[in-house]
Amino acid sequence: MPTAEASTGQDNHEMNNLFFSKTTVVGVGLIGASVALALKEKGLCGVIYGYGREEENLKKAKERGIIDDYSLDVCKACEGSDLILLSTPVGVFREIVEKIKGTIRKGALITDVGSVKGSLVYELESLMPAGVYYVGSHPIAGSDKSGIDDARAGLFTNTLCVITETENSGSMAIQKIASIWEAVGARVVLMDTFKHDEIYAAVSHLPHIIAYAIVNTVNDISADYIEYAGQGFRDTTRIALSSPELWRDISMFNKDNLIKLINTFRDNLDRITRCLENGDALGIEKDFLKAQELRRRLK
Amino acid sequence: MPTAEASTGQDNHEMNNLFFSKTTVVGVGLIGASVALALKEKGLCGVIYGYGREEENLKKAKERGIIDDYSLDVCKACEGSDLILLSTPVGVFREIVEKIKGTIRKGALITDVGSVKGSLVYELESLMPAGVYYVGSHPIAGSDKSGIDDARAGLFTNTLCVITETENSGSMAIQKIASIWEAVGARVVLMDTFKHDEIYAAVSHLPHIIAYAIVNTVNDISADYIEYAGQGFRDTTRIALSSPELWRDISMFNKDNLIKLINTFRDNLDRITRCLENGDALGIEKDFLKAQELRRRLK
Repeated sequence: MPTAEASTGQDNHEMNNLFFSKTTVVGVGLIGASVALALKEKGLCGVIYGYGREEENLKKAKERGIIDDYSLDVCKACEGSDLILLSTPVGVFREIVEKIKGTIRKGALITDVGSVKGSLVYELESLMPAGVYYVGSHPIAGSDKSGIDDARAGLFTNTLCVITETENSGSMAIQKIASIWEAVGARVVLMDTFKHDEIYAAVSHLPHIIAYAIVNTVNDISADYIEYAGQGFRDTTRIALSSPELWRDISMFNKDNLIKLINTFRDNLDRITRCLENGDALGIEKDFLKAQELRRRLK
Repeated sequence: MPTAEASTGQDNHEMNNLFFSKTTVVGVGLIGASVALALKEKGLCGVIYGYGREEENLKKAKERGIIDDYSLDVCKACEGSDLILLSTPVGVFREIVEKIKGTIRKGALITDVGSVKGSLVYELESLMPAGVYYVGSHPIAGSDKSGIDDARAGLFTNTLCVITETENSGSMAIQKIASIWEAVGARVVLMDTFKHDEIYAAVSHLPHIIAYAIVNTVNDISADYIEYAGQGFRDTTRIALSSPELWRDISMFNKDNLIKLINTFRDNLDRITRCLENGDALGIEKDFLKAQELRRRLK
């Protein structure tokens, strides 16, 4: 994948030097909590603070040893931290950075785990105070689950993590963020922020919109029909169990790519519809075969 | 599910009386071979004959003890059988029945494992010689795999099996076919053939067409993007690995339901597109939430 990927060239020696005395996880859900657990397991951090909207969830995270303490005040939670992880829905990243920018310690690293990058990364970068480094991350380790109950240190083992690079990214910051993800088990690729959004519109965001739309189609015909579904339907629509709030934000942030892709998808659907209408069985088989061949690359 | 389901009221005593001295599996693939293995495991059959297009596959099935013998002549394979299972792609059911109808033994039971029923069941029924009983079956146990390598006796354990009933179905034949599926572990529901096709267009056939179309959409943008896909894409498009030949037939046989459903699906996609274009985040969230709620019924 030469267009978007580049090795970070990180070696074990450098990774072993990673240590963050105070880490803040802003949004303690599946990904945030799993990062916290993984950092602890790998001995990369001292104390971990959590911030979130629901105290109940933060209490539970503390009781389970996912975080060491928490605050319902995001500035307090981030004060003095040398690593801040944004793991809320992407729609609130900007608001949070606006709030905390006055209290972030010099030399701190900020990253996120959002599924959209594009111009958002540039916006967040521009808000950083001098001496604070922001690098966007996207671990490809999501799930239809979004709570801490499914969090685990091993969530990132053998997964891909995209790190976005801009003209302004400091190379040391990039290296450090890459080292963190590699230390917790991920394979890191560097990518332009807009390329990222184009790729993930196709391989993640569109499939989510479609999965929701398939379930709503069944609902339009007769909701009870869902009881007759087998494994194929279950798998195809598993991601329709995903958080509507999270995917609303992702869809809105990546809407330009999505609108284009929905058109391309619609062309594919129209071609099949014409084959059905014209009784063109061979046309359908060729179309299915082409898809099967490409899908086999993932086996 | 009162509209389509009815208990077969089968008890264990009756099931124990089931025995077929010669069974023929016409099309020895994943489902046919799994039925053969399950019948053997449950002691429901004497000798099992296989028929298929590829001798290599039949040889392998015989070596593995899935079938006891085979013939490349479908009439020979079916001669004297008291149970015949059609497990080829649905597109050749009619041709096979036309061929074998002169040699089917009186009192024989014929069933199939096809994913479409509708008028096809009536056609096949009309071809049966006097004293031969045909009942359509659809075990909801398919997979993207279609070969004998993945066949196993336990494939039907705790799955659903739809049996279609027509005005002409003999009640003893229905009972016997239901007993076979129950004996191999399935939960049986009786259903009208056209109702079956309406339901499975929504919960199986449309999702297959869409899965193929998602992969082809990625292909249209850039095939290499597939390398960046995570688990969501893998699950959503797993069924795009399914046999193009099999799904060509299913799509063509159920095209009227599919064309209607594709329109309903397109309406859902258009609504989301309008929300994206208008920046209507709340509209998107409501739509996703509705889908999430219905999908949760399957958890």
